[in-house]
Amino acid sequence: MISFQLLLDSFEKKFQVEIQNIQTTSPVKLYEPIAYSLEVGGKRIRPVLLLHAASLFTKYPETFFPAAVAIELFHNFTLLHDDIMDHADIRRGVSAVHLKYGENSAILSGDAMSIMSFRLLSQCEPIKLHSILTLFSTTAIEVCEGQQYDMEFEEKDQVTIAEYIEMIRLKTAVLIACSLKTGALLAGADEENCRLLYEFGLLIGIAFQLQDDWLDVYGDKCTFGKKIGGDICENKKTCLLISAMEMGNEKARSSILEWTRKSDFDEKEKIEAVRAIFTESGASTATKALMKNYHDQAIDKLNQLTIADSDKTELRKFASQLLSRVK
Amino acid sequence: MISFQLLLDSFEKKFQVEIQNIQTTSPVKLYEPIAYSLEVGGKRIRPVLLLHAASLFTKYPETFFPAAVAIELFHNFTLLHDDIMDHADIRRGVSAVHLKYGENSAILSGDAMSIMSFRLLSQCEPIKLHSILTLFSTTAIEVCEGQQYDMEFEEKDQVTIAEYIEMIRLKTAVLIACSLKTGALLAGADEENCRLLYEFGLLIGIAFQLQDDWLDVYGDKCTFGKKIGGDICENKKTCLLISAMEMGNEKARSSILEWTRKSDFDEKEKIEAVRAIFTESGASTATKALMKNYHDQAIDKLNQLTIADSDKTELRKFASQLLSRVK
Repeated sequence: MISFQLLLDSFEKKFQVEIQNIQTTSPVKLYEPIAYSLEVGGKRIRPVLLLHAASLFTKYPETFFPAAVAIELFHNFTLLHDDIMDHADIRRGVSAVHLKYGENSAILSGDAMSIMSFRLLSQCEPIKLHSILTLFSTTAIEVCEGQQYDMEFEEKDQVTIAEYIEMIRLKTAVLIACSLKTGALLAGADEENCRLLYEFGLLIGIAFQLQDDWLDVYGDKCTFGKKIGGDICENKKTCLLISAMEMGNEKARSSILEWTRKSDFDEKEKIEAVRAIFTESGASTATKALMKNYHDQAIDKLNQLTIADSDKTELRKFASQLLSRVK
Repeated sequence: MISFQLLLDSFEKKFQVEIQNIQTTSPVKLYEPIAYSLEVGGKRIRPVLLLHAASLFTKYPETFFPAAVAIELFHNFTLLHDDIMDHADIRRGVSAVHLKYGENSAILSGDAMSIMSFRLLSQCEPIKLHSILTLFSTTAIEVCEGQQYDMEFEEKDQVTIAEYIEMIRLKTAVLIACSLKTGALLAGADEENCRLLYEFGLLIGIAFQLQDDWLDVYGDKCTFGKKIGGDICENKKTCLLISAMEMGNEKARSSILEWTRKSDFDEKEKIEAVRAIFTESGASTATKALMKNYHDQAIDKLNQLTIADSDKTELRKFASQLLSRVK
């Protein structure tokens, strides 16, 4: 069993060479923003999951490096275009691409990144290409649908927990599920194991996003790596806000509404007040419970995989670290 | 031999059903702008060329309808995003997508359109998918590169004819060439005929764009369907402008520079003055000659195709209509 860390190290090393190649391709003004957005970092969770899933069924997961790069490119393309749409200025501690290179560059370089991910897929073994392309393109469309729902939720008065879960399933979870299944497909895994890995990815992806939302409110600024309370300031309809509106008493609900309607407020004061309501209304506990529920369902899928139990260690560790993570 | 018109009619009929399906898919706000941009029209040149190329090697070109839709979707995606980048408000006589639905919708719906074209390709016969996806994704990247050069030319002081031709090869010609080759590949044509059709498409695509540039200056407003002199007003470095700067005398050159530097001018006056320089300097004649040259090279490739000469009639007609077209 190759550890996640080893896969990550070997992926990152080869990926950095890839980024250098991209950076020096002509026209440089098209490719430089792509290299910039990739080299800034990120946890590389998706390519590592792809390579790990492949390693469960073959000794040579590194053969699938192009597909792993494809997934990472596609993920970063979505961040790049999302940042334009959300008017987000900072990504991973540095200027977002549209701020650094201008909006036109961000649109066009993003387009190229998305297409490059499909060109990388064309390097897959021809016999596997049909299933890989079907899965990847379907997933990619779903991610767009998720972003659409996310934008629509900003304008909607009310969003249910079910609608929220469906949104994060599309926007976040399907690409994690796709990473795992693509690795398994490429390594020639049987249909049932492919399906189970996909479902594990979907469930753990939802848990991952719920945890992200929770950390945005209760995380530690230093370890979480981004501003705490950002979602509260922007009135984002996360699981916490929706739960608080559903579970809170009349006073809690009207207090939240009051805060969300204020255009002029002291950030620290708003974050502290809303956080207190999230805690007192039980929204925090409910979100943690929901997260645990998705985590447990994911582990259940993992248990059903017909591979050696010792081979499940890394994914179990990944799932449990996720629940206890601080960043 | 099925005529272009018949292929166009049968494509359009099925395509309208496809558009209706897209229009009613959820989330509607993601898919409606896509349907809008497709239903506005266009000449459907690329899907017809794909189906026609296929019909040269099979009796059942309609089998490849999904790939024809993929090409048309990809082409319209590029127009949609180009219109955002160029701040173009009108497309085919109606509001551009970013004006009608907002810029975020135009970005996201465009992204989805691009990906949908790859999802449609996944419906190709698995055994042909590798060559189809390699060609299509490479072409799609080239189109982005062409748009990048086009944007860069706006900022550059000087552009050569060779650089301009390379830009329109990437931005326009490769997708026309790809349409023809994709049809041939799908229908199982041999490598040599695939190559010749691709080269025919490339050369005729360049001739097509040169004609488009010429018509933008010398066309008839009513038949050309868009404003005459638009490129002149925007100082676009087309073959005409570049030729005039290369071939014109000192007076012609300084007059053009003077007009391009004016920010406040009477449109009609500028168009007439610059058009006169294009004519007198020989730039118009040179552009027409270059166009004829690419057309003749294209016909040469067509002649080399190892199919019945009678089967070449439609492509010959297409090439000659292109040279005499008024819109």
